[in-house]
Amino acid sequence: MTYGEFDQIKNFMAPLAAKAKGAFDLKNDGAVFSCAPELEWVISTDTLIADVHFFADDRPEDIATKILGVNLSDLAAMGATPRYYTLNASYPKNIAPEWIARFAGQLDNLQKHYQFFLLGGDTTATPGPLCFSLTALGTVPKGRSLQRDTAQIGDLIFVTGTIGDAALGLIERRKTASLHPQLIDRYLRPQPRTTVGPALLNYATACLDISDGLLGDLGHILTHSQCGAIIEQNKIPLSREAKHILQEDHKTYDIILNGGDDYELLFTAPAQYISHIDEISLQSGVQITQIGQIKQGKTLTCLSPNGQEMQITQKSYTHF
Amino acid sequence: MTYGEFDQIKNFMAPLAAKAKGAFDLKNDGAVFSCAPELEWVISTDTLIADVHFFADDRPEDIATKILGVNLSDLAAMGATPRYYTLNASYPKNIAPEWIARFAGQLDNLQKHYQFFLLGGDTTATPGPLCFSLTALGTVPKGRSLQRDTAQIGDLIFVTGTIGDAALGLIERRKTASLHPQLIDRYLRPQPRTTVGPALLNYATACLDISDGLLGDLGHILTHSQCGAIIEQNKIPLSREAKHILQEDHKTYDIILNGGDDYELLFTAPAQYISHIDEISLQSGVQITQIGQIKQGKTLTCLSPNGQEMQITQKSYTHF
Repeated sequence: MTYGEFDQIKNFMAPLAAKAKGAFDLKNDGAVFSCAPELEWVISTDTLIADVHFFADDRPEDIATKILGVNLSDLAAMGATPRYYTLNASYPKNIAPEWIARFAGQLDNLQKHYQFFLLGGDTTATPGPLCFSLTALGTVPKGRSLQRDTAQIGDLIFVTGTIGDAALGLIERRKTASLHPQLIDRYLRPQPRTTVGPALLNYATACLDISDGLLGDLGHILTHSQCGAIIEQNKIPLSREAKHILQEDHKTYDIILNGGDDYELLFTAPAQYISHIDEISLQSGVQITQIGQIKQGKTLTCLSPNGQEMQITQKSYTHF
Repeated sequence: MTYGEFDQIKNFMAPLAAKAKGAFDLKNDGAVFSCAPELEWVISTDTLIADVHFFADDRPEDIATKILGVNLSDLAAMGATPRYYTLNASYPKNIAPEWIARFAGQLDNLQKHYQFFLLGGDTTATPGPLCFSLTALGTVPKGRSLQRDTAQIGDLIFVTGTIGDAALGLIERRKTASLHPQLIDRYLRPQPRTTVGPALLNYATACLDISDGLLGDLGHILTHSQCGAIIEQNKIPLSREAKHILQEDHKTYDIILNGGDDYELLFTAPAQYISHIDEISLQSGVQITQIGQIKQGKTLTCLSPNGQEMQITQKSYTHF
């Protein structure tokens, strides 16, 4: 580690760890943490690399929002409440201290918003692209974390927010001039459903976050739970902007169904809990929409708005 | 994530997580872990990048050994027993599956040796150099982790193993033909002192691992503990190879005192515990040598073999 890296840690990172007592101001070889005995830890980790997972010229604030957001979304998908994170930052040599200051400033804003804190990390120089690995730690009541393989025949299928905006936003982000800044916002700045996830612990049978696209991620639940499903396309919640684009070009429906990066929750729950789920939506201010139902078999059926059935076989949506 | 990445996870990473029940075969958004209520968690994380922290043409087995070793060394420095790790791997697009298989094979060997297991991770492609971020999780009895800021005036200063070998090994690694493969081995394949660290919990007052060089890391203890020290150069344990090189070129002493990457433990303990420390050395098979003593003041004094005192002021060894 060079002097510059020690300075970066001291000036930008250590203040983010001030509220985590076990972080020891980032001066030790590691950090210490514990939770109440009735809880257990959920850990999730993601790497984001410039020009793979974000644009190198994205604002540092947006990159901070994305790297925190994707990991917080994973915690939410397991029903966990965010507690701590560690951050491994690899900076190209020509990075400006001002860039790091803006990045760290946004981490600070988001830490306060989500009430979770930096616990440790590593800062290195890299001859390659800017790269961050973030590891998020949250807690759930012991043995209660939400899983993917526990959907039951007859369960209803729900999603939070609106679907496809981020994938459409990525297309808009690549344009020199976009008519849809709201979609770009959805692509750049995911809003992890951190209040919805833990609230679902008593009601959801299976849950994950939509990072690979609605059909692909629903496919994960179906494969792991060994069941099929039917979803109704006209129930899939779309933003005003997505509807507008869809009206102009119906082929964008494919992007909406299969595009990634929405970081909305997709979950299953028995019909008897609908009123509880409505209440969670009301309390959190996050739209929750029923889009279909878990069925016997291995087939995912999409009902198109004109009543046509489109059968999607397991092979086409199963990666794992 | 591409199909190839799902395959890599399924084929190479998921088997490493088979013994960690809370890893859910790496199929979920995150993993779950907990420990007995009398314990707490220690977390440490490091990023290693090709041609920064290792040579791009190092053997995959050696890179696996290094990324695990540097993190296990951090856990050992805090007195923690290894339990789990997460691994973020960023592979250049042209990486051969055989390379990943060899890398994962060595992780498997080391997991079994250290009895700790993969809990989660992330696999991405990168346009940049091969890059790994590893986050290690260990446990210590609550409130008992070893710190850097707790050395006491009068404590003796100890190191494990031999000092300077890795820095000399790095020089040898760069040669087309080396006479000292043992030193290259010490540079490439750190041996984290995982049995010594936890055994020191009842005896050491302060501890860290030597990653930045003996003087620099002793400086961390002195700065944080607000004290000085005297060390006797002729007590510093050297390997046969280091002694040989030193005889030929006395200037290499500077490399031995300030070179990094040894991943030996440096700790302080009251003189009354010498027999216990000897016993730990005997039980673990790891050489432990007393090299000096903690003193009042802010000065680090080096006694040279001919009795000359060399005073090193805090400014020159303090990074933080």
